[in-house]
Amino acid sequence: MHIDLSVRLTNQTPVYPGDPAVRVKPVTNIEQDGFQDHLVTLATHVGTHIDAPSHMISGGHNLDAYPVERFVGRGVYIDVRQGYNLADIRKLGLKAGDIVIFHTGMIERYEKTDYFEKFTPIPAEVAHYLVERQVSLVGMDMCGPDYPPFPIHKILLGGDVLIIENLTNLDRLAGRTFTITALPLRLDVDAAPARVIATIL
Amino acid sequence: MHIDLSVRLTNQTPVYPGDPAVRVKPVTNIEQDGFQDHLVTLATHVGTHIDAPSHMISGGHNLDAYPVERFVGRGVYIDVRQGYNLADIRKLGLKAGDIVIFHTGMIERYEKTDYFEKFTPIPAEVAHYLVERQVSLVGMDMCGPDYPPFPIHKILLGGDVLIIENLTNLDRLAGRTFTITALPLRLDVDAAPARVIATIL
Repeated sequence: MHIDLSVRLTNQTPVYPGDPAVRVKPVTNIEQDGFQDHLVTLATHVGTHIDAPSHMISGGHNLDAYPVERFVGRGVYIDVRQGYNLADIRKLGLKAGDIVIFHTGMIERYEKTDYFEKFTPIPAEVAHYLVERQVSLVGMDMCGPDYPPFPIHKILLGGDVLIIENLTNLDRLAGRTFTITALPLRLDVDAAPARVIATIL
Repeated sequence: MHIDLSVRLTNQTPVYPGDPAVRVKPVTNIEQDGFQDHLVTLATHVGTHIDAPSHMISGGHNLDAYPVERFVGRGVYIDVRQGYNLADIRKLGLKAGDIVIFHTGMIERYEKTDYFEKFTPIPAEVAHYLVERQVSLVGMDMCGPDYPPFPIHKILLGGDVLIIENLTNLDRLAGRTFTITALPLRLDVDAAPARVIATIL
């Protein structure tokens, strides 16, 4: 069984303050042209997407520097709706290549402005621990791991841990054994929109 | 082991004649803004992408009508570089949910105009057979299954077989046992760019 952890991309998809809106518009139609086609305009950090080091780190890798092996791995679900506890996280046996999923519950407020403005950042000690364990990616159902000037982004991306933002449906992962497949568009820039699924084992 | 079957999306990515070019442009930079971000403009049928029925069929399903289960399945590699042979294809034991991969070799000419203008269409009898077997998707390393007015597209999409176009690296699948994971952006229109991987078993 596969679970879709990705949000829809539409003209109504919420975007980070200051980012351009998503635009999906028809450019042909079946009656006149014989086929339907659309033109899509979107920022690299909209919806469910993966951040690469070059988003925050001068000279850091772009996303296409990573082979697809990096985007598939054992998923480790961590419920942080009541907060982060490093001692508990240490007990999970995180290992290189794991994909850590923080369930914050914030995505329930995706349509509200406080989604982008009132969330609990990932503690620095937790970010350092993920880097130490060499996990492949850390995903979350919130808009990002921290606020400007983005110290947690920089710990993670500087430590070669990629970040998946704006996940959904994480409640369906509690208590499950699963792998994550998080496939970004093959754009060689600072990030790319992605389709992310969990495969229940 | 995973193999990336997706082409890169850049300002140089070839597009179907008449389609708008891909545009990837920076909108912020680390020095001035503290982070790097890009704006991407692309048609739904550019690069490696998946066609939904509404591309060609009035009233047909958009892509987001399909749960992610549809995008993962047993891969069946078929070498058609010397042509299509329905009798041989019948021997492969295709079953519902399979993802058929036609290796045409055309992607080697992706940068040339004849890529879009001189290819061998999928024969109608083969398309009808794929529909009969209820395969989930048919993928190919060429720009599409046929020329205007697109009779083969209509057989496949009308029969609920989705189409993956502009795959690459298919030579690496010959003789392998693999699954395909073909994840499109979660756009609810006629098609979406996708990242497609093969997982070698």
